[in-house]
Amino acid sequence: MQGPVAIILAAGQGKRMRSDRAKVLHEVCGQPMIRYVVDAARGAGAKSIIVVVGFGADQVRTALADEPDVHFVTQHRQLGTGDAVIACRPLLDGYRGPALVLVGDEPLLRAGPLGDLLQRQQFEQLDCLMGTAVVPDPSGFGRILRDSAGRFLRIVEQRDCTPEEAAIREINPSCYVFELPILWDALGRLDTSNAQGEYYLTDAPELLIQMDRSVSAVPVLDAEDVLGVNTREHLAEAHVVMQRRIQSRLMDDGVSIVDPRNTSIDGRAEIGPETTIYPFTVISGRVRIGRGCRVGPFSHLRDGTVLEDGAEAGAFVEVSQSTLEPGSRARHLAYLGNARVGEGANIGAGTITANFDGRVKAQTLIEPGAFIGSGAVLIAPVTIGRGATVGAGAVVPKGKDVAPGQTVVGVPARPIGESE
Amino acid sequence: MQGPVAIILAAGQGKRMRSDRAKVLHEVCGQPMIRYVVDAARGAGAKSIIVVVGFGADQVRTALADEPDVHFVTQHRQLGTGDAVIACRPLLDGYRGPALVLVGDEPLLRAGPLGDLLQRQQFEQLDCLMGTAVVPDPSGFGRILRDSAGRFLRIVEQRDCTPEEAAIREINPSCYVFELPILWDALGRLDTSNAQGEYYLTDAPELLIQMDRSVSAVPVLDAEDVLGVNTREHLAEAHVVMQRRIQSRLMDDGVSIVDPRNTSIDGRAEIGPETTIYPFTVISGRVRIGRGCRVGPFSHLRDGTVLEDGAEAGAFVEVSQSTLEPGSRARHLAYLGNARVGEGANIGAGTITANFDGRVKAQTLIEPGAFIGSGAVLIAPVTIGRGATVGAGAVVPKGKDVAPGQTVVGVPARPIGESE
Amino acid sequence: MQGPVAIILAAGQGKRMRSDRAKVLHEVCGQPMIRYVVDAARGAGAKSIIVVVGFGADQVRTALADEPDVHFVTQHRQLGTGDAVIACRPLLDGYRGPALVLVGDEPLLRAGPLGDLLQRQQFEQLDCLMGTAVVPDPSGFGRILRDSAGRFLRIVEQRDCTPEEAAIREINPSCYVFELPILWDALGRLDTSNAQGEYYLTDAPELLIQMDRSVSAVPVLDAEDVLGVNTREHLAEAHVVMQRRIQSRLMDDGVSIVDPRNTSIDGRAEIGPETTIYPFTVISGRVRIGRGCRVGPFSHLRDGTVLEDGAEAGAFVEVSQSTLEPGSRARHLAYLGNARVGEGANIGAGTITANFDGRVKAQTLIEPGAFIGSGAVLIAPVTIGRGATVGAGAVVPKGKDVAPGQTVVGVPARPIGESE
Repeated sequence: MQGPVAIILAAGQGKRMRSDRAKVLHEVCGQPMIRYVVDAARGAGAKSIIVVVGFGADQVRTALADEPDVHFVTQHRQLGTGDAVIACRPLLDGYRGPALVLVGDEPLLRAGPLGDLLQRQQFEQLDCLMGTAVVPDPSGFGRILRDSAGRFLRIVEQRDCTPEEAAIREINPSCYVFELPILWDALGRLDTSNAQGEYYLTDAPELLIQMDRSVSAVPVLDAEDVLGVNTREHLAEAHVVMQRRIQSRLMDDGVSIVDPRNTSIDGRAEIGPETTIYPFTVISGRVRIGRGCRVGPFSHLRDGTVLEDGAEAGAFVEVSQSTLEPGSRARHLAYLGNARVGEGANIGAGTITANFDGRVKAQTLIEPGAFIGSGAVLIAPVTIGRGATVGAGAVVPKGKDVAPGQTVVGVPARPIGESE
Repeated sequence: MQGPVAIILAAGQGKRMRSDRAKVLHEVCGQPMIRYVVDAARGAGAKSIIVVVGFGADQVRTALADEPDVHFVTQHRQLGTGDAVIACRPLLDGYRGPALVLVGDEPLLRAGPLGDLLQRQQFEQLDCLMGTAVVPDPSGFGRILRDSAGRFLRIVEQRDCTPEEAAIREINPSCYVFELPILWDALGRLDTSNAQGEYYLTDAPELLIQMDRSVSAVPVLDAEDVLGVNTREHLAEAHVVMQRRIQSRLMDDGVSIVDPRNTSIDGRAEIGPETTIYPFTVISGRVRIGRGCRVGPFSHLRDGTVLEDGAEAGAFVEVSQSTLEPGSRARHLAYLGNARVGEGANIGAGTITANFDGRVKAQTLIEPGAFIGSGAVLIAPVTIGRGATVGAGAVVPKGKDVAPGQTVVGVPARPIGESE
Repeated sequence: MQGPVAIILAAGQGKRMRSDRAKVLHEVCGQPMIRYVVDAARGAGAKSIIVVVGFGADQVRTALADEPDVHFVTQHRQLGTGDAVIACRPLLDGYRGPALVLVGDEPLLRAGPLGDLLQRQQFEQLDCLMGTAVVPDPSGFGRILRDSAGRFLRIVEQRDCTPEEAAIREINPSCYVFELPILWDALGRLDTSNAQGEYYLTDAPELLIQMDRSVSAVPVLDAEDVLGVNTREHLAEAHVVMQRRIQSRLMDDGVSIVDPRNTSIDGRAEIGPETTIYPFTVISGRVRIGRGCRVGPFSHLRDGTVLEDGAEAGAFVEVSQSTLEPGSRARHLAYLGNARVGEGANIGAGTITANFDGRVKAQTLIEPGAFIGSGAVLIAPVTIGRGATVGAGAVVPKGKDVAPGQTVVGVPARPIGESE
């Protein structure tokens, strides 16, 4: 196992979600929250990532099956976070070096602070370095106790807090770097003499101190980073923060987002400068938008959409698995699925590409300069030739390609001038 | 008149609304605000509810005509809140017991605190118990004056406040329980020696104290509960709070609401667990959505919509008075009105049920497994048989039912293979 | 040059916008931000407005070409704000009186406070009066230094602040009234002995004091007014504030806006009382809406839209350059462009006016009482006569007017009863 390694705890059910799905698979901005944690760990420098699964283990394995650096360990018994980490030991047998330990239900963790944490643990040669956060409302979190010199002493869980301890606002978001194999020693000494009869990872730092190991804690995380998702309300809160992050980055890069509150953009979307996103726009999945485009209001761009420079998608327009070439436009009430719209082509209001016949999806090719009249239906597979015109309300049957420059009208569409 | 009774003051015009409608009929989340107050009073335990009407009296009577436990009293003269309550006396002649007195323009009142108030008044055998709230900004409200032991003394109106009194943040939201007939004695002693020449109900508690009656005040209401709607801006504020309440309840029950800020759900809607509501969705009226459904983005589900388990309504889809059976779906740009969509049926993009001919509305029946191609128009009344296919762009005339398993295409739609 | 005059500095590029456009041309609520500043200056009483252009000078001149009281001066060298004002001197040669000096990237400036500032400068016969604001976070702004008697001393730039000065929350938003020609003397004494080698207008007030001129500063501006737009995030912040202002005004006038957070209304729109705007509505450009209309949810009303009293535009409806006469309605999934919809006419779901043939736009006239069936396409130019009916799914070809009272169906639409 190549290091640094990351261990992500993702075995919990999350009963308050009231869901059959593993908690970490609930989505934030279109992706399961575990994926953000995996990305953050990888971005922080982890070369191998171990995800500890339990409830809904198969779902989690499937959801992350496309991540080659992610390995899975199943926690068969529900014996706490310490036990979850212990379950990784066989996979890490012989590994010496840092292990970043995170929880899978904190989708707002970012690579930057985690990378700082890893570097600092290595630089200071610490056996354990905890990343903490100072938050406005610490309730529910374990508190970080320090001595008068500011040195980390231990974590106190909410339920064990004295009133003074409860007032501490530095909290433990379950974000650690442990040096292996030292951690295994500490975990071997954990016991289950607590109310739940579980092994708690939170006891490990104090144990390590008792073992004369070097332990420290630094508040590298922002309050926002450590939102733990336990309910669907938390999920919605995470959406709001994640949108702010995604949109801030885009705006810094020269994208105008008219009303960020009313815009939803997938973190995987790429958008060029001088593009304007009008309100009530949803961009989901892997979407690529060029420079100087106009999108919205009321546009839904789905996975596989490409808007090349200067293309436009307008009101009540849905685009999926389609490319709009430079300067082409679909300004109102249209559905474009599995289509390519050529340079400068115009898609009229109410135009629909009928890409699905109930069994398979097929392609619609609209060549450069074509003009598709309002309310037209193009039944795929079909090609509308360069500079051709499809009359308003026409229905072009599948396979009945329209020749370049030709004008067709009617239902079914026929070249103009032909008798019906 | 069966007790406990509730008296709701709803006679005001609300000049700042600049409206011809009675103020209490302005809507919050799809329902007149008076209806929330009626529901809260009933939920608190009131068996009979008297609504005092004045401005727009007939409108208010009509709006609440379907509530069998609601009685109406007309306040013919505009002589203040005390006079409004006095107008109820004939209807309550002989009634002995508690009367919950509320105002109809506080739509955020909730049954829970009002029920607590009623119970406490009975348990403590008080002649008057006022529900108060401690608010961040008390300006505009009457303040609650207490003695050094914390006992209620009297209400001071904003205009009569000394600077010290103005700083008091415990306010009178006009929410009382009075024991009848004791209240009638107090109201008989009210006079109109004030600037407006009106009888003020707010003088009653102090009068009762002077009459050696037991009077108390408890801050059972939240600041949010007591938003009095006097302007259309207040109406919009009430919408935001009400949405938060409605959506929190749904999320607790296992519904995912991706972006609560961009979702509007009627309080009467029922939504099953594991259903996801995407942004820019409006659910209005009595809508029932099952388990594991997907709704939105950009869906408008109106009164009478039923989405059974696993059904989907997607982008730019409006549904009204229609049922989508399990696993059926209308994913893009569709209007379904007065329709039933059978199990597993697929509604293509751009499909319209033409349910209104300018005079009457008619039904569209789409049987299980049917496939409606993109851009089709189905003119009601019409039945699309089980497993039938309607070609893209087809127009099915009214009464021209499509047989089970049959495929029709064209305008007007004909079975495939028939000459046009 | 007729006074009072206003000078608006608009020569900057705004590098942080990452744009080829002049910064002041970026739009807030549908209009270039410079236009709001011009409107505020004019509203404050300025009779002649000089805009100092530099980067993107031609773009700015073009954008304001329709403003007859706006004059342009080009700042050829990038030598600071003082130099920008000096560039106006030739145009103002001989002018004696007040000059309001503003910056073009503060779109939230309002006429009221600027008018107060001008009047006060005249009344008190001051040589310089600065409008200031007290803001929660002054970082980035110049601070206003006063003596112990509260008299203005000078402006200290952020980078020159001592810690005590940095804590001052009264800031300089670059909003001045100077008496001309006195200002020219001061500007003549400015030097470029600073890090940037530029002439700073902010040095002028202190210079005037040294010249024994009367200088004062008054906090007439709100924190919100002085948002300077330097990034696209600032642009989005300005949108939110501007929407609040526009919508507050409309609500005060009797318009119900169900969810202001989810509504976007152009400041040029006029809306009558008792009209309700449902969520997810965009009103852009010059739109006029009468009394008692219903708009939305999910409506896009664009420039040139007129909804007369009681007209309705509903879900997924776009209207552009069209008039809906009293009581007419387009409730779902429709595009109306270059159309007139007569009194009481009904536009069915999915109806499209095909107003653009790829070259020119043409008119659709729907006379009073006409009924357009669902999914119809009307190809302009065309007239649907009074009380006529267009069947669902019909396509009415251009020029094939439908006679009053006639019913047409099919593709192409023919009078009912005629053989196809």
